[in-house]
Amino acid sequence: MIENNGVVLVLSGPSGAGKSSLINKISDDIGAYYFSISTTTRPMREGEEEGVHYHFVSKEEFIKDIEGDNFLEHAVVHGNYYGTSLKPVRKALAEGKLVIFDIDVQGNMAIKNRLGDITTSVFITPPTLSELEKRLLDRSTDSKEVIEGRIKMAKREIQRTAEYDFLVINDDIDLAASVLRQIAKTARLKIPHDVINDFVQRWEDVD
Amino acid sequence: MIENNGVVLVLSGPSGAGKSSLINKISDDIGAYYFSISTTTRPMREGEEEGVHYHFVSKEEFIKDIEGDNFLEHAVVHGNYYGTSLKPVRKALAEGKLVIFDIDVQGNMAIKNRLGDITTSVFITPPTLSELEKRLLDRSTDSKEVIEGRIKMAKREIQRTAEYDFLVINDDIDLAASVLRQIAKTARLKIPHDVINDFVQRWEDVD
Repeated sequence: MIENNGVVLVLSGPSGAGKSSLINKISDDIGAYYFSISTTTRPMREGEEEGVHYHFVSKEEFIKDIEGDNFLEHAVVHGNYYGTSLKPVRKALAEGKLVIFDIDVQGNMAIKNRLGDITTSVFITPPTLSELEKRLLDRSTDSKEVIEGRIKMAKREIQRTAEYDFLVINDDIDLAASVLRQIAKTARLKIPHDVINDFVQRWEDVD
Repeated sequence: MIENNGVVLVLSGPSGAGKSSLINKISDDIGAYYFSISTTTRPMREGEEEGVHYHFVSKEEFIKDIEGDNFLEHAVVHGNYYGTSLKPVRKALAEGKLVIFDIDVQGNMAIKNRLGDITTSVFITPPTLSELEKRLLDRSTDSKEVIEGRIKMAKREIQRTAEYDFLVINDDIDLAASVLRQIAKTARLKIPHDVINDFVQRWEDVD
């Protein structure tokens, strides 16, 4: 068969859907993976680590990478740049890793456009809106305003579930994890179009 | 979670790629499935069975189904109609079955257009053209002309491998079967868009 290529797994869904818990549950079974994190020009804060909380880069580097079309998306907040850089993604893909994105519906479309041939996308959601509200209140890490914002966003995003390859309803976490594990393993079998083209080229030549 | 829905698995690839052997190897593990067969108006021949070799229907029935847009594709050969009817497919889907199509690249595109939300497509190929030639000669069921036709067709079809969700190179049959089994199990997790829409509708209502 063809060598293991890097592939992409996109996870979207409301904050409170349980994406992080699900990844933790399946991480031992899915092989080498890279969890995509944002890149920023803002200074590192106490307790933060390069490559854990963000990739920290200089403004010059960030702008050069925008010009080099290395960002899936980027924005400026309070004078600092934030974005999803393709550079660490490409590195992880070259190492044959499963690259996991926790990204919104816009981000999913951007990834589909750039890396569609090796991407599998999953929308993860709590079973009902009231269950989502309950979970957000229970974990009590967010202010009332933040929770309201998250719920508004969830109502908008769930309308676009059909843009994903799979919908996983996180009601029973063990069941949801087994479904996601199955999807992630199959996501590994995607072959990049350039590798397919090489194979097709060689196909008629080899004797 | 959501009830088990019927889903579609498309298998394409040259005659001699080993599709039938692969399906036989995985059939016990993939649950209830329906293998799509063609519908025809030609008379049943000795030894043929309805629902095994073809679905045999009257000309009137066939034409009514063309008008009802029930055919993925159809053609007339020597005055007899042949086609891929969606009627038995819809019945099998309603029963929650995995519907398997052994169909060419045109057929794959037709299925994508009609049933794309629940379809997973796989192109299966021998590792090289010379291996394909060897297999076709070895099984010696076809005339030289037929084999030449199959090889010509294979050269054309392999160029369109990238239109499929997965490429499976059937070199070691056990390895290829385990890959296909994995893909078929994940194919089961696809949810039809109308079921997703119902879920999204209900999502905000349930308390």
